[in-house]
Amino acid sequence: MEKTSYLLVCLISCLILSFLASSWFLPTKPELPGCSKYAPWCTASKNRIFSKTGFSLQHKSTDHSTETPQHPLDPLTVQEINTVRTILSSYEPFSSTIPSIHTLSLDEPDKLQVQTWRKGDPLPPRKAAVLALLNGQSHVLTVDLESNRVTSHVINPTSGYPMLTTDDIMGAAKVPFSNAEFNKSLTARGLSSSNSLCITPSAGWFGPNEEGRRVIRVQCFATEGTSNFFMRPIEGLTLTVDLDKLEVVKFSDKGIGIPVPKSSGTDYRYSAQEKPPQMEPLNPISIEQPKGPSFRIEDGHMVKWANWEFHLKADQRAGLVISRAMVRDSETGELRNVMYKGFASELFVPYMDLDESWYFKSYMDAGEFGLGPAAFSLVPLNDCPRYSYYMDGVFAAADGKPFVQPNMICLFEKYAGDIGWRHSEDPLFGSQQIREARPKLTLVARIAATVGNYDYIFDWEFQTDGLIRIKIWVTPYSKDEQWAGGLLVYQSKGDDTLAVWSERDRPIENKDIVLWYTLGFHHIPCQEDFPVMPTVSSSFELKPVNFFEGNPILGAAPAFENDLPVCRPSASS
Amino acid sequence: MEKTSYLLVCLISCLILSFLASSWFLPTKPELPGCSKYAPWCTASKNRIFSKTGFSLQHKSTDHSTETPQHPLDPLTVQEINTVRTILSSYEPFSSTIPSIHTLSLDEPDKLQVQTWRKGDPLPPRKAAVLALLNGQSHVLTVDLESNRVTSHVINPTSGYPMLTTDDIMGAAKVPFSNAEFNKSLTARGLSSSNSLCITPSAGWFGPNEEGRRVIRVQCFATEGTSNFFMRPIEGLTLTVDLDKLEVVKFSDKGIGIPVPKSSGTDYRYSAQEKPPQMEPLNPISIEQPKGPSFRIEDGHMVKWANWEFHLKADQRAGLVISRAMVRDSETGELRNVMYKGFASELFVPYMDLDESWYFKSYMDAGEFGLGPAAFSLVPLNDCPRYSYYMDGVFAAADGKPFVQPNMICLFEKYAGDIGWRHSEDPLFGSQQIREARPKLTLVARIAATVGNYDYIFDWEFQTDGLIRIKIWVTPYSKDEQWAGGLLVYQSKGDDTLAVWSERDRPIENKDIVLWYTLGFHHIPCQEDFPVMPTVSSSFELKPVNFFEGNPILGAAPAFENDLPVCRPSASS
Repeated sequence: MEKTSYLLVCLISCLILSFLASSWFLPTKPELPGCSKYAPWCTASKNRIFSKTGFSLQHKSTDHSTETPQHPLDPLTVQEINTVRTILSSYEPFSSTIPSIHTLSLDEPDKLQVQTWRKGDPLPPRKAAVLALLNGQSHVLTVDLESNRVTSHVINPTSGYPMLTTDDIMGAAKVPFSNAEFNKSLTARGLSSSNSLCITPSAGWFGPNEEGRRVIRVQCFATEGTSNFFMRPIEGLTLTVDLDKLEVVKFSDKGIGIPVPKSSGTDYRYSAQEKPPQMEPLNPISIEQPKGPSFRIEDGHMVKWANWEFHLKADQRAGLVISRAMVRDSETGELRNVMYKGFASELFVPYMDLDESWYFKSYMDAGEFGLGPAAFSLVPLNDCPRYSYYMDGVFAAADGKPFVQPNMICLFEKYAGDIGWRHSEDPLFGSQQIREARPKLTLVARIAATVGNYDYIFDWEFQTDGLIRIKIWVTPYSKDEQWAGGLLVYQSKGDDTLAVWSERDRPIENKDIVLWYTLGFHHIPCQEDFPVMPTVSSSFELKPVNFFEGNPILGAAPAFENDLPVCRPSASS
Repeated sequence: MEKTSYLLVCLISCLILSFLASSWFLPTKPELPGCSKYAPWCTASKNRIFSKTGFSLQHKSTDHSTETPQHPLDPLTVQEINTVRTILSSYEPFSSTIPSIHTLSLDEPDKLQVQTWRKGDPLPPRKAAVLALLNGQSHVLTVDLESNRVTSHVINPTSGYPMLTTDDIMGAAKVPFSNAEFNKSLTARGLSSSNSLCITPSAGWFGPNEEGRRVIRVQCFATEGTSNFFMRPIEGLTLTVDLDKLEVVKFSDKGIGIPVPKSSGTDYRYSAQEKPPQMEPLNPISIEQPKGPSFRIEDGHMVKWANWEFHLKADQRAGLVISRAMVRDSETGELRNVMYKGFASELFVPYMDLDESWYFKSYMDAGEFGLGPAAFSLVPLNDCPRYSYYMDGVFAAADGKPFVQPNMICLFEKYAGDIGWRHSEDPLFGSQQIREARPKLTLVARIAATVGNYDYIFDWEFQTDGLIRIKIWVTPYSKDEQWAGGLLVYQSKGDDTLAVWSERDRPIENKDIVLWYTLGFHHIPCQEDFPVMPTVSSSFELKPVNFFEGNPILGAAPAFENDLPVCRPSASS
């Protein structure tokens, strides 16, 4: 029923990001605080200022404690998460021991229910999908928030375990320090427990003796003299830890004699810079909209801008989910379905290095850690331009309590000085000289997920001509200059894949299509990456082909001087 | 002597744009007015207003009559072009007949001379390179502007002819109307000379009977009821015209019975639109710099911005030329050579259609028509953002007289709300919560060349992290819906080529390298193209790898709220 002739698809179910990285990479766990620990965050995000740099981490403070769902696809509210927790705590199988909650999110209604729902209609039954771990078993539950009952409960019959919790990660990271061999290794390097810390690289099962148990590798760093401990790895020192018993399964130190990199030059903070870069000073520049942005956000999650409407929400695993993207036909005014659901299904980082302390690094950052909690608060004016709207995420911690990930999504109108369409006519032929041009305006929804020493920026960009661009920016660290040039640089824009899809253009008309689009990077470290590299990006586009009857923005007005803002420099600049 | 480890090259000599287009394409001749014809333009560009749309075609008016060259690479001035013309008119071989001038531009000094030249030094001898046509022979001359003599003169011994002049094109376009068969064809279609016009598609030699003579195809259009005659082709009607004798060599009409497309809906002008598109109105948005842009232009052509310096000039063939691009080392402050010369060598549009009225369409728009004169005045606020600087081109007409192509280049600082670099630190590991991000700022030099019904936008973008992006935007027309879906869509970003180059990273160090980069598009028309399509783009990047000691913008300051402009809506909006 979703009429479309979009070049690629009318539906993306998954966007797989395959990050083939060769640089030093150690993902830490995402920030998944329990409410007890981060009380102020639990039901309201507060406005905090970093005095050192002077920018605010967010503009507004939203009270989530009273939120109620407005749309079938709205994420679980604080109240709903609390209700689910209450239901589970009185659920008979868990009466003796409360399991640890690894996933607690909306169990989305069927597509047809969502599509036929209209504003004002009662919401379809609200349900929660829960993944809980108890005594080494994964419990998959559905909790009905109308009947307040567990309506489905199976124990995962196959192998594999749910997403890691903060408790898992923090627990495993502490284990080494009670291990004699480990402490001997620290001492041998002139380190101690007071100036070193450990984190957990990717989980996984490697070999029969790891089957049927949750194990994880633990690696460590020297912390002294830097805010950037990733630059000071204790190379070759790897422990395998049992996540449930919290004990060392295997100890390996092949790194004696490998010096720990020094801390000098590793601090990237503005407050730590001694001299500005050698360049002419830049005058302030800003995207200005004194009348405010042109988009509206209705009922918390419905975004309306120009000829676009879509549902935008935070997601614990995917980070950000776009649902029910619809574009208004420039001729008929009809609101037409384009994409039912779009999100990142995984962020895959295989190192493909056989070394004993590297072979297991084959991350699935979305599935193992979750991109949502890794999407820390965006920095206004620097992560997102002025006039951005910031959206929080509401997730469940390991104890089942809700917590707020403040300002993890920004939404902004983008004008880069580019051209939407143009044409000139030569006066020697045409009856008159013609110069027609239109500025290019787009709407961007963005998150920036920090997984360990990597930052991933996800942009979903909507153009008034009907095109959707999915652009990923990455800023991995390099280990150090020793790595430079060891491999080839190749950053694929993925167009070969697009080409393949476009060949299938005709057959997709009026069909529901699921696209797994793999967008790949291959990064070779170089000096310019140190200690934090400039962003590099890759993208792909969903483009309407014979979807509209003509150029949908032909009738758009040009920009006129007398419509533009009147600005003056700020007092301070 | 040009130390570099740029990922691709330290020198681009040529950028080839291969435009594989399948859409309806008929390039008209570039606007090459002689001074006699366009007196006001000859030595000064005037400010003209289009009352219908209300935007000015340029901001400033520059008097070029008194310009003198300041840099070895500065283009020939109005005075110098006049001098060359005077020298040629008294040059003995041309005393009886003045040849037609097809190219008249600076004969650039040797690279070493340019590199060793310092501001304040006398300029190397100024010379003009001239291509003139007389009695069917191509004369290649060098004119010395110090001795005021022709210092070199050879007659092109090989086949091939120079760039077409306005006289060539206008002359050929008139020929059909004095041809009886042609007028019969018009009448047969209910047309007449009063409501039709002809233009010249690409030149070329096809078959032995065309050897040794300058011939060109001529095709025609109905002009009634539209400002957009390209949408009303007289299909199948093709004449071959001798450019020197101005007579019909061959007449072919295979199009009787093919209706001329109707004019309705073809007018793309804002003033001709009856209704706005079906979308929510957009508030004014603008890149604002109340303290002005951060770049400086010294001596007319030297651009200085942030850590970049380069020479920017208009060029009759290439449209725009970047020379001596140098970046300041963020550590040492040293100004380091990156790219000696960058420009588009050709814009190749092969149709590869065997049909009698299509087979000859294999355009070389730069070499046949010249991108410079095709780069009509940019439209402020729509082709380029506010605070853009506009640069004129000074070229020679067929009669050797200088003329000004006003506002054909714009230069602007770009801020798109994107991120230069960022990193967050997880408070559970780091001693404190860290959120560091920097806005991404770039400098763009742009031209927009209109060749017939195609517009080509060339962006040369300079980033503070040392990366240069060459991005091409195109807006071809489609013929009409009959063409839709006839071929595959494939738009290459050209990264495969980049990959090949990057493999040669090490060997290129400290070497001068010439890169011919082929950037390709393949366009299949669709409904959304009608009557003018939204821009599509493709780009490639030159990226520093182990060129700097570290991230060159690590020390850059973040944006602070209190530095940003204070804006209010304009009275009218």
